[in-house]
Amino acid sequence: MIVTFTDFGREGPYLGQMEAVLAHRAPLSRVIHLQSDAPAFRPRAAAYLLQALLAPFPPGCVFLCVVDPGVGTARRPLMLRAGAHWFVGPDNGLLLPAACSQGAMEARVLRWEPPFLSQSFHGRDLFAPVAAMLANGESVPGDPVQPDALQGWDWPAALWEVIYVDAYGNAMTGIPANSLSDAVVLNLADEHIPYRRVFGEVGPGVPFWYRNSIGLVEIAVNQGSAAERLGLEVGSPVGCAG
Amino acid sequence: MIVTFTDFGREGPYLGQMEAVLAHRAPLSRVIHLQSDAPAFRPRAAAYLLQALLAPFPPGCVFLCVVDPGVGTARRPLMLRAGAHWFVGPDNGLLLPAACSQGAMEARVLRWEPPFLSQSFHGRDLFAPVAAMLANGESVPGDPVQPDALQGWDWPAALWEVIYVDAYGNAMTGIPANSLSDAVVLNLADEHIPYRRVFGEVGPGVPFWYRNSIGLVEIAVNQGSAAERLGLEVGSPVGCAG
Amino acid sequence: MIVTFTDFGREGPYLGQMEAVLAHRAPLSRVIHLQSDAPAFRPRAAAYLLQALLAPFPPGCVFLCVVDPGVGTARRPLMLRAGAHWFVGPDNGLLLPAACSQGAMEARVLRWEPPFLSQSFHGRDLFAPVAAMLANGESVPGDPVQPDALQGWDWPAALWEVIYVDAYGNAMTGIPANSLSDAVVLNLADEHIPYRRVFGEVGPGVPFWYRNSIGLVEIAVNQGSAAERLGLEVGSPVGCAG
Repeated sequence: MIVTFTDFGREGPYLGQMEAVLAHRAPLSRVIHLQSDAPAFRPRAAAYLLQALLAPFPPGCVFLCVVDPGVGTARRPLMLRAGAHWFVGPDNGLLLPAACSQGAMEARVLRWEPPFLSQSFHGRDLFAPVAAMLANGESVPGDPVQPDALQGWDWPAALWEVIYVDAYGNAMTGIPANSLSDAVVLNLADEHIPYRRVFGEVGPGVPFWYRNSIGLVEIAVNQGSAAERLGLEVGSPVGCAG
Repeated sequence: MIVTFTDFGREGPYLGQMEAVLAHRAPLSRVIHLQSDAPAFRPRAAAYLLQALLAPFPPGCVFLCVVDPGVGTARRPLMLRAGAHWFVGPDNGLLLPAACSQGAMEARVLRWEPPFLSQSFHGRDLFAPVAAMLANGESVPGDPVQPDALQGWDWPAALWEVIYVDAYGNAMTGIPANSLSDAVVLNLADEHIPYRRVFGEVGPGVPFWYRNSIGLVEIAVNQGSAAERLGLEVGSPVGCAG
Repeated sequence: MIVTFTDFGREGPYLGQMEAVLAHRAPLSRVIHLQSDAPAFRPRAAAYLLQALLAPFPPGCVFLCVVDPGVGTARRPLMLRAGAHWFVGPDNGLLLPAACSQGAMEARVLRWEPPFLSQSFHGRDLFAPVAAMLANGESVPGDPVQPDALQGWDWPAALWEVIYVDAYGNAMTGIPANSLSDAVVLNLADEHIPYRRVFGEVGPGVPFWYRNSIGLVEIAVNQGSAAERLGLEVGSPVGCAG
């Protein structure tokens, strides 16, 4: 199974063109579009989101990950073998938290070159063919690299920032939900944000934090938009109060 | 074939996470995302929409339906066998009109529990695994329940309300198109709305009703937005004039 | 493989209903949604976009193309055999540039009629079943027609107009990128637009043209929206300066 995780959006022909390459080169593999609106041009936020999304996938997936503001520069293309999964994408930290969470990891810088490489769409021209070959069980040329030589290797276990804002204005953070006790009061935009189990436990318009369905601390407002109410966006810092 | 019908939207990781569960547990089943912007938190409107969408599906589909404002409360989880299809989702009426339209129906309250059940995402944790097992032909534990003990059992054959507004501002109603004669004049927002066969039969800016492609009465405005022109939204009442 | 290219959008039940027909009638064929926000009601702009998107597809695809403002009128339904692909859709020029780019072409006006044909959704009722039959290798009744009797047969190799505006406000044109030298200065909205290789070569807010990843001339503004800055939309004319 090949799983895409990108910031392309669903609009336009980009996702469709990438899927065409996958269908061509790995005709027997299923393709799942896990998320297409990962934080645009924000590989660090996207990395912590990706890590939180792995749980429901069976062993043996190839994650094709493209949040790649450095496309066309000297940033390195990677394939990582971690646990029972493969991760393919740019060396900008995007793959690291997810791969590290899977146990033993083996990293290689891609040495495979496609027949045609556009300047701006390595997702289609480079990473998709590599993902397809890995899904087929083919070997792909690459040079071993020590994990601690990769971007993002020293990132913390929790990212105390907003990493995604959904359509309702709920703000996910990069903080694992099981790392905070119910007594913790968060501080965002100079407001104190207490824990509540569910939306119904606070009045309309009141902000709180809760443990979301992918295991992250999420900031919400009952019957309202936390992003609007608190002025949050991807990258907004989150602190502990008091 | 597993068919999803949800109010998750295409944005975010929600549809992708649910598809991961389906691909894991029913690797041989095709998955079709029928609609992902069903009326949010409005199971009754969504129910009439779902009923109108079944025609093109072959026998033997498992419809995985999640418009579930009561998630986390005591509302019951259901599986219904109706005609040659299965319907899986919450007991809030969402499944009833569609299932009833398929002929003889057998209803069961799910007695299967997943290894992990989040508070807010039963689509992924409960309904998707059940849909996958049914698609595999596996039996799923459940307690028989009389259809007339289900939410929505007494809903009318036609819902005289707006049930969906599309991107162009056309407003679908829950009224079967073949239940009205061409002479019927509708009343919405204190305006009289006559029948026209096609858009070209009225001048620009003029509202009318027609029979849409899924067999429902739909309100439209030639070269304009009926929703804006008449102030319509999901739940707006529709009446007969005169 | 069946490839859809439509202006339906991802919202609503339209794409899902069409996919249901494909899955029913061609259960062994993979379906890829190449693009669902093709220029709405603009078959000419959409036609040049489609032509630019074919490169990554393997031989033997059936392209199911629906940008069809004339649905319900006397416009003819077509199937074209071109190179190793099939193209199915309305006779409004949509299929022509793409089909002609594939080499020898054989055109037929569809003579197959579905059991039920709605007035407004021939994508689901007519074109999808035909695409499915072709994907199955079945023959579909049709009357041969000379290519030069088709709409769009005399369209130019390059369309000097904006054909698509993406979510960032970048404006694709119908001009093949390899047909212009780097020295060409374009004229849009009375401004002179020079060539630049990448975004980084101009200051913030400055418009330029570059060769995009699907081989077309695209107008962009560094860190801004070209569409907004220059007042561009689908159909805006593009000229050469000087």
